[in-house]
This record gives sequence, structure tokens and C-alpha cells, in this order.
Amino acid sequence: MTPKILILGAGYGGLTTALRLQKELHYNEADITLVNKHDYHYITTHLHQPAAGTVDPRRIKIDLDELIDKDRINFIKAEVVAIDIQNERKVTLDNGQGLTYDILVIALGSEVETFGIEGLKEHAFTIRSINSVQLIREHIEYMFAKYKNEPGHPEYLTFIVGGAGFTGIEFVGELADRIPELCEQFEVNPKKVRIINIEAAPSALPGFDPQLVDYAIEVLKNKGVEFKINTPIKACTEEGVTLADGEEIKAGTVVWTGGVRGNKLIEMLGIETMRARIKVDEFLRAPGYQDVFIIGDNSIVFNEEGRPYPPTAQIAVQQGEHLAKQITSYVRNGKMDLKPFKFNLRGTVASLGKGEAIGKVGNRKMTGYTALIMKQLIDNRYLYSIGGLPLVIKKGKLLG
Amino acid sequence: MTPKILILGAGYGGLTTALRLQKELHYNEADITLVNKHDYHYITTHLHQPAAGTVDPRRIKIDLDELIDKDRINFIKAEVVAIDIQNERKVTLDNGQGLTYDILVIALGSEVETFGIEGLKEHAFTIRSINSVQLIREHIEYMFAKYKNEPGHPEYLTFIVGGAGFTGIEFVGELADRIPELCEQFEVNPKKVRIINIEAAPSALPGFDPQLVDYAIEVLKNKGVEFKINTPIKACTEEGVTLADGEEIKAGTVVWTGGVRGNKLIEMLGIETMRARIKVDEFLRAPGYQDVFIIGDNSIVFNEEGRPYPPTAQIAVQQGEHLAKQITSYVRNGKMDLKPFKFNLRGTVASLGKGEAIGKVGNRKMTGYTALIMKQLIDNRYLYSIGGLPLVIKKGKLLG
Repeated sequence: MTPKILILGAGYGGLTTALRLQKELHYNEADITLVNKHDYHYITTHLHQPAAGTVDPRRIKIDLDELIDKDRINFIKAEVVAIDIQNERKVTLDNGQGLTYDILVIALGSEVETFGIEGLKEHAFTIRSINSVQLIREHIEYMFAKYKNEPGHPEYLTFIVGGAGFTGIEFVGELADRIPELCEQFEVNPKKVRIINIEAAPSALPGFDPQLVDYAIEVLKNKGVEFKINTPIKACTEEGVTLADGEEIKAGTVVWTGGVRGNKLIEMLGIETMRARIKVDEFLRAPGYQDVFIIGDNSIVFNEEGRPYPPTAQIAVQQGEHLAKQITSYVRNGKMDLKPFKFNLRGTVASLGKGEAIGKVGNRKMTGYTALIMKQLIDNRYLYSIGGLPLVIKKGKLLG
Repeated sequence: MTPKILILGAGYGGLTTALRLQKELHYNEADITLVNKHDYHYITTHLHQPAAGTVDPRRIKIDLDELIDKDRINFIKAEVVAIDIQNERKVTLDNGQGLTYDILVIALGSEVETFGIEGLKEHAFTIRSINSVQLIREHIEYMFAKYKNEPGHPEYLTFIVGGAGFTGIEFVGELADRIPELCEQFEVNPKKVRIINIEAAPSALPGFDPQLVDYAIEVLKNKGVEFKINTPIKACTEEGVTLADGEEIKAGTVVWTGGVRGNKLIEMLGIETMRARIKVDEFLRAPGYQDVFIIGDNSIVFNEEGRPYPPTAQIAVQQGEHLAKQITSYVRNGKMDLKPFKFNLRGTVASLGKGEAIGKVGNRKMTGYTALIMKQLIDNRYLYSIGGLPLVIKKGKLLG
């Protein structure tokens, strides 16, 4: 009887696993099911662009039926509401459906971490999905229109971005590029617009090469972005934010990019978690389980120095590729011939908006155009890996 | 000593007066001052288009310095805060400036009339200026984005338009045209969108030819617009509206087009007013004053049957033309040779959105394309009258 492979989530990790299996396995070798909340995949690493309004959200969306061969993968558009790996080995969906499995791949992606900061959940926008960034874009334009009707409210033109990690930095860079366009459209004096990036840690882009961080800050300051580093946000209200040092900043828009955590469903698996993520074994398995794999933002993998790799698209994709190989061998040989997963850091690039970026590949630091090209290479390599040349042609140029 | 002519307002009436005088008089014959809140004039009869988002608001804006010859007209960008025609013969501006005059032309346009309906001022949008319609457009898009993030709130996609007069009818026609575009952009099922036009009077377009009104309603119903005629709105809240019959309709957007009144400054002149408008004498003068003229939406002119003409761009323009002639003769002959003003109704056309309109010229009724062409003729005739051929070429095609 053909083994049932159940993949939860069509983000970087889950989609890569599914598409690799689709390529490797013949339609009769395994019964593959992919569950995802939306019927599309999106380029999460570029959400900051439609959020700022510089790119149409539809451009970073990829319909799953463009990628999935329905003869080989059974796709279910639904939300996972419960995962029981301990007793019934069953996954429950919001449509009431219950799914069993021989091999389970959990790749549900991350959720926003607000660290319990008061009012953040209620009043801050987050860069987490196509819908959430569309809302940010529309809200920004709405604030310009409101300011034109109530010029007595300069705070409508103040945009606070909480968090100066990759998403925060890439978003403020993009937003700074959008502002002149909005000022022209609404006939607003650009001097009246403020973009304030607030970071609790002692540095922006924590953990990134300090020299490159300085470069990034310089570039963004020249674009008009203000920074408050080493400044925790204490609370967020309808009116703006209150900082730990007591300062209050009025703002019509607060976008929170300050943290991600795993998935609440991960916390209900009955396994020890760190911020809703699970420390998987070297074979990407949930500790104590032979047939439950956890990848992407739901998993934690440690490097040689024993520090966890940050959750990135890059590691999720490599996990998916690795896992697909293992599952294939299992399907073919009845048993899983296990190989330990090794993350190969190909490089890290952060865009700073039009024409600017910073990046590190191995020990090589790059800035400006070189870094941008590097980013485009990484993007296109991924598009190629999931959709081949047609997808690169269709979406590639639009990114980076 | 050259007479001081002071014109308040650069809408249809005031601008026409100023531009006719600029054409007629030599720069040394009179000292003409034009005061306006903005440094631009706008095509009020087309505000419903940028409100719906089908036309860029900038397209219906005309910078005054494109029309005004600074050697002949002294333009002041300021808001009028007080008019004293009884004692000091002085007009006070929000910049503190005080202006005297030999001839005063009051053409300050209308304000929104809410008939004291509870909550309307606070919660309803109004189609009254470039800025106010830009806000409506952005709000509509924002509601689509909000719905995508909170699908449990269908009311975000309900758009209530209070008033089925010309503005209301033209707006719902335009909005109905915009919806499919928005549904595609935000990937929303058009069936979920509601446009409800609510009118207190027993008929839409009160006073307009019943046969044409029926035609209009048919066209708009086919575009998906719902009508509640003979249904007064009792109250407007953040959640929507309550009707006189007690029905509550939840809506994320309420646009009020149900009425206009003159200007609060008119009510402070010490002359009897009807809804902040003044019944001028046959020479367009404020009753009891030789040198104070009131035109456009601030004035009331009665027809042969003793019914007041509705305030329209058409009558305002004709008043301006008439007044300019009188002022010219006054400047030339020292005394005003007065001619009674006769309104010549050239025709009335209401657009119903893309490709559809209704109109009446004399006794000739027209619909569809014919009516649209008629509308364009009227629009272009006006553009020509204020800006000549260049303006027709620049803006003409964009309208209608």
C-alpha cells in the first residue's frame, strides 16, 4: 500500500518539499497531500515592497496550481486547526476534515511575536501576508488623504516601524522610496513626512556585519529615515507609541517587524518548544518521532558554535530539498536512509530600496549594485527551483 | 482713482467674473483682487469621478496662475473669515489682512447641508473638494483591504450614498464602474459588494423629467446599485446608518450628497437668508446695496413661476458673465448701467458612469451616448470660456 505523505504549509519549506517529491516520485509511488491556508504561495522575502506600495502584491503571489501537478499532489485549501502526533496520528482542518499520515511534514511558518508589548497586537500593522501588506499600503495612502483634510494632524504623516531587523530595514528603505511619489500625488511637502525606525537591541540588523550595518544606516538616513536604536517600545496605542524612556511619539501608522515566533500549533504537539519552534534532530525529525518532520520557521537548527540559525527562506528551502531526498529513499526502499542536514549559508543580502543593498557571501562583503545583483540571483535561483525558467521570466524581473 | 473690485471665491461664478474682467479691462482701469482658499480652481461638476477613483483628482484641478494674468488681477490665497458690508465695508482674511472695496462680489460657494441628521457631520464623507474626494477614494480602497484581512466583516464592502440628487446619482454610477476593478485588484467576489443609494424624497433626481429618472434608475440598477427612495436617514454612526423606518444598515462607508446650503459668512451679512443663500435683486445685488453682488451658490434667483433655480455651475457662470459686463460699464462710465439678469437654461445632463447619461435640452430628452456627447460639449464650452483652446485640449478629453 502506498505511503501517505502529508505536508502542512506551502511556504518555502513545505512547497519545496512537495515540489521535489512531485519531481522525484511517480504518481503511483506515494500519496502526497499538501495543505495550505491559501491557494497561492508568496515570496515572503519581498512582502516589504507591496507593504510600501512600490510593487503590486499580485506580483509576489504565485498560484499553487501553476506549480502543482494535481495527478501527483492532492492539494487541500484549508487551515490546520489541530495536529495529534501522539495518539491518533491525525491532522484536523478547519473544514472538519481529518487527515492521517505515514510521514508528516510540519512547515506552517511563523507568527508575529509581540513580546507582550502593550497594544501592539491591537494597533500595529504587521508584514506577514499578502493581505496584511495590502492593508499597510492602503493605510499609508489613507493617512496622506486624511492629512490633506486635517492639516492640523502632522502625526498622520509619521510612520513608525518597530524593529530594525531584516524586515524592518528593508521596509523603511522601500517606504522612503515611496514617499516622494505619495507627496507628489497628494501634494504634500515631503519635509512633513517622518519615518522612524525603532529598535530595542543595541544595533540595527543584530548579528549582521557591523561595517555593513553602518553602511545601511547611512544609506537610509540619507533617504530621510530616523533611527532610535537601543530604544525599546513600551506600549502602542491608537495615537502612536510610548518608548521605554517615556517619550511618546504620535503616529498615524505603526508597523511592527520586531519579531517572529513559530506556530501556536507547534506548542500543542506535546514537545518542548522555544518560542513555538522545535529543536529538531539532525535528520529534521521532531525529537522522539520517526515519521514527523519539522522544517522552516517551525524548526530550530543549531550551528557549530551551538547558536541557532535565524529562521530564513534559505534554510527552509534547503531543509525542504534535504527532506524530499530522504522521503524519496524511504518510499523507494521502505526504510528511511537518513542523512544529517547541514545548512549551507549561501549568503545574506538585505535590500535598502532602489539601487541599494548590503550583503555578505562567505567572508565577502558587498554593497550597492553588486549586492543588489546578488539578491536578484538568490531570488531567481529560488523561483527557478520551484517554477523553472517560466516562473523566473514571469516574476524574476519584478523582484529585487 | 481706479475703482477697487474685490471678488471672493474662485469657483464657477467668481472665476468667470474675474476672467471676464481681465479680458475686458486694461490693467490701469481697475484694481481687481481675487481671494480664494486654494491656488487652484476645480471642476466641481466632476468631483464624483475622483471620489469613486475613476479619475485622478489632479485632472479636474486647474492652477489659477494658468488662468490669471497677475498684471491685471491681484490674487490672494486666503480664507475669508468676515465680511462687513454694513459699516466698515471691509473683508477680513484668515491671514489677518483687511480688504476694502468699491465693488464687492461674493461668490464663496456652498457648504454641505446635513439637515441636522444625527452623526452625519461626524461619520459621513462629503463630495465637496479635491481633498474630500481624495479621502473618499482612499477610504474605499482601504475598506477593500480591511475586508481581505477581516472577511467576517461584510459591511466593509457596503457603500451607502445618502441623497439621489445629481451628485449622488452621478457618484453611484461612477462607483459602480470602479467596483469590478477594485474586486479584481483585491480579489474580492463582486457579489459581496453593495452600493445603496438612499433618498428621502419620493423620487430620485427630484424635479428632473420622470421618464429620464426611470431610465437612470434602470441603468444604475443594472450596474448593481440598490435604491431606497422615499426613505429618510435618521442617523449615521461609525457602524452605518439608521433609517427613519428603523432599519439599520451596517456600512464601512457613508457618503452624504443629500444637500447643500450657502455659506455661513452669508448668514452674518445682516440680510435675510434662505439656507445661507440670499435672494438677490434682478441685477444680482444684495438687497439694499448698490455695490455688493452675490452670485453662484450664495445667491437665489427665481424663475417665472416664482420657483428658485437650483444652484448649478451653469447659472453661476452666466451670473459671472453678466456681472462682468455690468462692472465693466461701471468702470468705464463711472455709473453702473444695469441690466436685469436672465438665466438661460442651456440644458441639464447627468452622467451615469461609463457610456451612459441622461439629459434634457429644451424639451428634447436624450439618453446614452447622445447625452454623454452633450455633457462633454457643456464641459468643454466651460473650459473654453475660462482657459481657451489650450485648456480644452489639456483637460477636455479627460472629462465626461
